[in-house]
Amino acid sequence: MTRSPRRPDDGRVDPLLEVREKRRGKRPGDAYVRIVRPYEDQFSRGGDEGELIATERTVLQRGGWHGALRRIRTTLIGRPISSERESHERLTKVKALAIFSSDNISSSAYGPEEIMRVLALASVGAISLTLPLAGLITVMLAIVTISYRQTIKAYPHGASSYIVASDNLGSLAGVLAAAALLIGYVVTVAVSVSAGVAALTSILPGLFDQRVLITALLVVLLMVGNLRGIRESGTIFMIPTYFYIVIMLALIGFGVAQTLLGNLPAYAAPADWREVEEGGQALALFLILRAFSQGAVALTGVEAISDGVPAFKSPEWRNARTTLTWAAVIFAILFLGIAYLVVSIGIVPDPTEKVTVLSQLVRHLTGDGVILVIAQVATAMLLVLAANTSFADFPRLSSFLARDGYLPRQFAFRGERLAFTTGIVALALLAIGLLIGFNASVSGLIPLYTLGVFLAFTLSQGGMLVRWWKRREQGWRPGLVINGLGTLTTAVVALVVGSSNFFQGAWLVIVLVPLLMVVLIGIRRHYRHMDEALALDSIPEAGEVSAAPIVIVPIARLDAPARQAIAFANSISSSAVAVHITNDPDEADAMRERWPDWAGSTELVVVESPYRALIGPLLAYMDALQRQAPERPILVVLSEFVPRHWWENLLHNQTALRLKLRLFSRPNTIVADVPYHPPRRK
Amino acid sequence: MTRSPRRPDDGRVDPLLEVREKRRGKRPGDAYVRIVRPYEDQFSRGGDEGELIATERTVLQRGGWHGALRRIRTTLIGRPISSERESHERLTKVKALAIFSSDNISSSAYGPEEIMRVLALASVGAISLTLPLAGLITVMLAIVTISYRQTIKAYPHGASSYIVASDNLGSLAGVLAAAALLIGYVVTVAVSVSAGVAALTSILPGLFDQRVLITALLVVLLMVGNLRGIRESGTIFMIPTYFYIVIMLALIGFGVAQTLLGNLPAYAAPADWREVEEGGQALALFLILRAFSQGAVALTGVEAISDGVPAFKSPEWRNARTTLTWAAVIFAILFLGIAYLVVSIGIVPDPTEKVTVLSQLVRHLTGDGVILVIAQVATAMLLVLAANTSFADFPRLSSFLARDGYLPRQFAFRGERLAFTTGIVALALLAIGLLIGFNASVSGLIPLYTLGVFLAFTLSQGGMLVRWWKRREQGWRPGLVINGLGTLTTAVVALVVGSSNFFQGAWLVIVLVPLLMVVLIGIRRHYRHMDEALALDSIPEAGEVSAAPIVIVPIARLDAPARQAIAFANSISSSAVAVHITNDPDEADAMRERWPDWAGSTELVVVESPYRALIGPLLAYMDALQRQAPERPILVVLSEFVPRHWWENLLHNQTALRLKLRLFSRPNTIVADVPYHPPRRK
Repeated sequence: MTRSPRRPDDGRVDPLLEVREKRRGKRPGDAYVRIVRPYEDQFSRGGDEGELIATERTVLQRGGWHGALRRIRTTLIGRPISSERESHERLTKVKALAIFSSDNISSSAYGPEEIMRVLALASVGAISLTLPLAGLITVMLAIVTISYRQTIKAYPHGASSYIVASDNLGSLAGVLAAAALLIGYVVTVAVSVSAGVAALTSILPGLFDQRVLITALLVVLLMVGNLRGIRESGTIFMIPTYFYIVIMLALIGFGVAQTLLGNLPAYAAPADWREVEEGGQALALFLILRAFSQGAVALTGVEAISDGVPAFKSPEWRNARTTLTWAAVIFAILFLGIAYLVVSIGIVPDPTEKVTVLSQLVRHLTGDGVILVIAQVATAMLLVLAANTSFADFPRLSSFLARDGYLPRQFAFRGERLAFTTGIVALALLAIGLLIGFNASVSGLIPLYTLGVFLAFTLSQGGMLVRWWKRREQGWRPGLVINGLGTLTTAVVALVVGSSNFFQGAWLVIVLVPLLMVVLIGIRRHYRHMDEALALDSIPEAGEVSAAPIVIVPIARLDAPARQAIAFANSISSSAVAVHITNDPDEADAMRERWPDWAGSTELVVVESPYRALIGPLLAYMDALQRQAPERPILVVLSEFVPRHWWENLLHNQTALRLKLRLFSRPNTIVADVPYHPPRRK
Repeated sequence: MTRSPRRPDDGRVDPLLEVREKRRGKRPGDAYVRIVRPYEDQFSRGGDEGELIATERTVLQRGGWHGALRRIRTTLIGRPISSERESHERLTKVKALAIFSSDNISSSAYGPEEIMRVLALASVGAISLTLPLAGLITVMLAIVTISYRQTIKAYPHGASSYIVASDNLGSLAGVLAAAALLIGYVVTVAVSVSAGVAALTSILPGLFDQRVLITALLVVLLMVGNLRGIRESGTIFMIPTYFYIVIMLALIGFGVAQTLLGNLPAYAAPADWREVEEGGQALALFLILRAFSQGAVALTGVEAISDGVPAFKSPEWRNARTTLTWAAVIFAILFLGIAYLVVSIGIVPDPTEKVTVLSQLVRHLTGDGVILVIAQVATAMLLVLAANTSFADFPRLSSFLARDGYLPRQFAFRGERLAFTTGIVALALLAIGLLIGFNASVSGLIPLYTLGVFLAFTLSQGGMLVRWWKRREQGWRPGLVINGLGTLTTAVVALVVGSSNFFQGAWLVIVLVPLLMVVLIGIRRHYRHMDEALALDSIPEAGEVSAAPIVIVPIARLDAPARQAIAFANSISSSAVAVHITNDPDEADAMRERWPDWAGSTELVVVESPYRALIGPLLAYMDALQRQAPERPILVVLSEFVPRHWWENLLHNQTALRLKLRLFSRPNTIVADVPYHPPRRK
């Protein structure tokens, strides 16, 4: 079979979507001028040569299946936001206190209870130790707060432990801090949401058995809210945070007054609780340390404000510092107030975890009335929103890590609403997994929580210490002392928490942190190696244009999709060959007979495969062609049928899919998919 | 930016892998001749112009990951078999009896027990009805056997109910028979394997709790055996089938002699069984009908021989008929013999299903010795191999259905060992699902079983009836009478089974059969419509060659993979354009600056995407290009990074994958994947 070589008619379209028009005059020889006409509403012309700017319509305007998905998405998370609007999303101190300190302040709702639960393992009498322990924790909070005020000033663009530790202690310390924080954020979500639901089930005990499902749904809700972006969240946050603060301050004031006046009735826990509790471990130092560890959870919220410095209105660092101090003061009052009242009334924690200590306190002060309901709802809302702090911090930290190559690049990509979509979704999935694994139990989750956060604190404080020492800037001596005290305090707490809670769950963190570090460092090494291997500063010697490909078109039947693939192959090569692999010689003869009418001058090669395999013979055939011209790539043109319904995929293209997977790993091979869209049914 | 259009150097390789050599003489003007040189060991030259024949090496010879998989596969299922060897795989009567009648004969092991179980629901005394019911079932077997002898003669190329019913009663009846049979085959596997494992656990009670796992593993073993192809299976089958026949005949002879002589000791069931059993339902007609239904399972094996007619040695139909008669006679002797002995000894079924009736019988006759173990092992082996009958029939029926368009085409494709791979794997998975769902209980599965098979019997017999009536060939009158009686008998049994077992599980079949029919018919309609829509007899007016494609190369970074994609694009088009979509104007400026050094004369278009979306703006850009030349396809050249390890896929190509999914549904769009294989690490 011979034929004249064909050359494709390679006409040119204008890639900048401009329209060439003649200059006014109609004489021959008039030069063409380019007149910019941006394409309808979809693109405008950029400032530089060869630049177009896409409009919102390019994102929104799609029909069919994708359009429907698009509309669901827009309903859930809103219309896309342009990058330009980012800088407008800054927070006032009042809003920032609500957003960033909800984590911190909300720990006052469960912190005292967690101390009491451990002490109750010794005896009901031991619970009176709650107040001194709460006092100790408050002193430590003061130290950490003062210490962090310095960190915020030193790192006004974001004082995440990851950044501070990387900057001063080296990248390994930074990765350690990052791993500890990532785990800490996931646990924060689980703890806060669990505590929030516990506040609700204290007044609605019927929901207790569904608590895992409810917490998971709340996490999904938080996820959707965060995918919408931070713009609205400030306002949403203010209400429950300030509501909780006001109610709790009022109740504490009322309660303290009543206690001092001796007006409160005596408290009696349900009889069956005592039986469970009176098992009685010895009140050894170890148990006191564990109780302290559980209470130290109250400090974990400090990191949130430091991470969020860039979100404050200018001057960022000064506003952030003020907010941090206020958050610490408010927390201290609530924490100590609640601890004092609970101990002086003599409340004991419910061994079945169905009723929270805080709800018992409110019930004892105000009875089973409206105030109880309001207080519990406010607590629940605050706690659920406290989980939101992690939804702000985890994705931001992930994006820092992705930017530095420690996490997949998707984590650094801002979604349509400027939120870090991948990080938000990853956090929600991990937190839901944890809630399911720990049955949404606050006491079960807390041992996982505190260690990671205090590890990060210690690294951050230690980093500041090194920084002062190296720089010796103005005021470095007092700075060194303050951060030194901070480092010491947080290191001691980390040690106490890690050792006293080791078997309660801290071991899991001690296992997971190094594992996560290995993953982070592995990812970074991979990206680094790839960047080096793939870098290319200028056109290599091989030149600007590859050798022309050898073009083959595997065909199964003589039908319209095959015809389309052959027509495409002919349009880019004058020597494309159709290949038919068959195990039926009769069918091959029939095809060869029809071929000239059906395919014109395109050449057909029939490969008979007596072993009925398709892919093996095709690959062997390609290898044989390749030996004739080792420098030329092989272009395999596949026709693919595009089904109208998803289930039709099961009836088509199975072979093409397997073939593509195999061809993907063959060097010097290019696969072109020519989709065939069937005509609509009559 | 201007440049001279380039034309790809479109050299030609020889698609038939020949080597052109000069004729002896070296003078200029000597014509080239083609000298055929088949490519090493991989291909030989076919008889026709343009034909190559692949050798086994094209299938076997692959390195790396695929090579490793290949080796595992070859170890498990053997080396590929060439299509030419198919006709050698015929069976003698002795082998065929073993293969096709194992299903039938093996029902004697559990048939009597299933009748007794239902009767025992009334009282232990009612169990004596087992013998008359067994007699009735044997009479029916005789009728069905005689009836099927005619079917086999009429359909020597395979007398499957699907074929007989389609041929005479129309395609809907055929599909009904097919659906009933497909379900029946799946249940056969589950029932036989469960009964086989029950025979084993009767002597090894420790395995009882793992019976679901054991049955599932046996199904996998059968699957692997069948993927190896039928060549070896004849020999494997002969041993347990004939072993079982001989042992059981000997035991029955011994038992009957002992009973008549009155030599057997009295039988006493364990005391705790009676307590469970004596609940006592009324011995109404309904219960007797249910007992009969459970026993009718014994007839289900008849279809197997009819299906397998083409596998017999010539003369196929005569050998198949003889084998069918022999199978029926052997089964009748075993079934009646076992039923007689069990009733006369007074054995009662174990309510916990841990010990089979047959094992009790053997134990009572021979004690707890070697003979018991041998008999149980032979029974277990026969039953497991009986499941193999379905592994022969289900894939063959599926291939008929696929050939006629009722099932996906994969079911008609013979694998490397000539077996219908897809059908075998599908059967194994469905059977394992059923075993898990029914906890491998024989009594639980049987109600699902009998109805489907008898439905198919009735359609097949009814088809024969119509055939005699229409053709009036020689001997049509007795033929009509015989098949009429067969139709009547099987229809009555189908009705009895369906109504009496309705709530025990027959309802599931009554729901599943129509559902499966809808699926089968839906698949056929889809294929039909597609064949019509895609058919193409000759080159359409649009011509042999498409319009030259508009070529665009989306690039993310200036790296080696992008360079490779651009070089390929330039090799097939003189006006390929690189498109960079970005949300970072600074980064775009940097790229534009490096561009001339890096890309030579290829044009770059930067699309700024302030909403950070990638796919939307790219699609909009393509639409805009398309309007300039609606008739030209758009070729999108994507560079894809080929990772060395599977997990690296998580770090790359995510965007390319999403993009490809979207482009697949865009009309007139071709996607070319240019894989980049990174250099090895130093």
